[in-house]
Amino acid sequence: MTDHRDLFPTRLESERDMFPRLDPVVHSRNQDRWDGPLGEEALSRYERDGFLWFEGFFSRERVAPFFDELRGMALDRALMDSDQVIVDPDSGELRSVFAMHHVSERFDKLTRDPRILGMVRQLLGSDVYIHQSRINDKYGFKGGGFNWHSDFETWHAEDGMPRMRAVSASLMLTDNNEFNGPLMLIPGSHHYFVPTVGHTPEDNWKASLKSQRLGVPEKNPLQRLANQGGIRAPKGPPGSLLLFECNTLHASNRNLSPWPRSNLFFVYNSVDNLLAEPFCGNAPRPNFLGEREKLEPLAMYDNFAPFQVVTA
Amino acid sequence: MTDHRDLFPTRLESERDMFPRLDPVVHSRNQDRWDGPLGEEALSRYERDGFLWFEGFFSRERVAPFFDELRGMALDRALMDSDQVIVDPDSGELRSVFAMHHVSERFDKLTRDPRILGMVRQLLGSDVYIHQSRINDKYGFKGGGFNWHSDFETWHAEDGMPRMRAVSASLMLTDNNEFNGPLMLIPGSHHYFVPTVGHTPEDNWKASLKSQRLGVPEKNPLQRLANQGGIRAPKGPPGSLLLFECNTLHASNRNLSPWPRSNLFFVYNSVDNLLAEPFCGNAPRPNFLGEREKLEPLAMYDNFAPFQVVTA
Repeated sequence: MTDHRDLFPTRLESERDMFPRLDPVVHSRNQDRWDGPLGEEALSRYERDGFLWFEGFFSRERVAPFFDELRGMALDRALMDSDQVIVDPDSGELRSVFAMHHVSERFDKLTRDPRILGMVRQLLGSDVYIHQSRINDKYGFKGGGFNWHSDFETWHAEDGMPRMRAVSASLMLTDNNEFNGPLMLIPGSHHYFVPTVGHTPEDNWKASLKSQRLGVPEKNPLQRLANQGGIRAPKGPPGSLLLFECNTLHASNRNLSPWPRSNLFFVYNSVDNLLAEPFCGNAPRPNFLGEREKLEPLAMYDNFAPFQVVTA
Repeated sequence: MTDHRDLFPTRLESERDMFPRLDPVVHSRNQDRWDGPLGEEALSRYERDGFLWFEGFFSRERVAPFFDELRGMALDRALMDSDQVIVDPDSGELRSVFAMHHVSERFDKLTRDPRILGMVRQLLGSDVYIHQSRINDKYGFKGGGFNWHSDFETWHAEDGMPRMRAVSASLMLTDNNEFNGPLMLIPGSHHYFVPTVGHTPEDNWKASLKSQRLGVPEKNPLQRLANQGGIRAPKGPPGSLLLFECNTLHASNRNLSPWPRSNLFFVYNSVDNLLAEPFCGNAPRPNFLGEREKLEPLAMYDNFAPFQVVTA
């Protein structure tokens, strides 16, 4: 029997206080089967902060081809005109390309990199599949920012993701520095679910991917969480990797530097956490935003040298 | 005989390349009369970078009353409704109050602080007066940013400031950190004048103070200057002081933190550099933006303990 109560009510008519998350942060504790490359200290840090930062996880040489591939895509008119490409509302430039792992074999293999996949399975305590993948691009002097939000809040309301059992991996293709709009996170914010205010219109994603307005927490809970946990903006060279929990609040500012910022972004969801009907009551979003068909557990693509995980 | 050629043509119909500044950066070299508290190293750094940063120049206790005074002003309806108060176009909240030194005796005395005034006279090699003063406020989660610009470019075009012989002092009333939209500067950019593109409409200031669109350099020179000099965003506690040359390119990003950012801002102009007619051909802007009446040299207000200037 399925439980159809909505455990994380959001997009409400009026403000409602945040409440503690109901799910574990690390789902594999005491399960030998999902043991993986992360040590106890890294797992504890992830549990506490809601993210792990690996400065220079891959070499520059390893990530350069991805950046080239992206430049190629920008020249592909048919792809550029499709729904899965989002253009910056101010500049008209490429902002996001979704379902990257279907467009590019190289990206597909990356999502199955044993080092990344090993950590993700360990964190989620199960087999996983790709819920969403994309590239986020901020051109020099141009890329806009994103308001504070929890991805889980959107995926729950608009995609019907039932529980907090997903991890995002973000791989930096360029330097991420103080001035080119790096991702900012509120450590510890993943311990709370913050309901947001505002009715979700049908096809909200067509607007929300350009400029996030719905799903943004109210000032008061944001202030409490940021005062409690502070704000962190991991910075590093191309090849750096961020793993962050699906409910960790994050945002980013405009890129006011001349230096582009491009990050790959994959979301791994547990096969035990498949999408239901969207809890906001709308029709499901397209598969490139919330996968409902290709749900086979990811198999490792093993073609790399042996490797040691070290966290910064 | 007055020379009426425009040495710094800007707001042009089409792009024109930047060119080296024509004026000294430090105007007092080899003039004992304007000797002051800055040592040779600090003067050289100012000459090279176009700014000097003094972390914790005043104590927190010294600046707290200014912040209180500001809160009081926000409650003064008559002041709030006047032209000299600029409101944030997005949030409707207080963004800038101009002519602070006429509104408040405390601010007036601050502009005549012997430590600050001593350095400024030394840099400008002359007596000085206040060309403009204001407070810039960015509320938590709300304050918008400013695009890259040289203040001199605007003051020349819209106020008729003939030459580069002015210094801005910015005193931090709150913490300035990575996340609350601190001022960013391009070191060395003051060595070039970057003409901008676009005709200046009459009363441009009514729009430009809310959102800077005119007077923003093109992407190409910005990129060259930032690649050459990098970008710096001085950070520090309340009481920190920034002195920056009138032609140093600067910008700031949105405040995405819950922490307010309030900075006082005074512009000192040399008495040998009084405003002429605006070079863009428009009527002069109001006195609270570019002083044309109160031009007496500032006299030091001496009521403080002895003091040593140390740069960070």
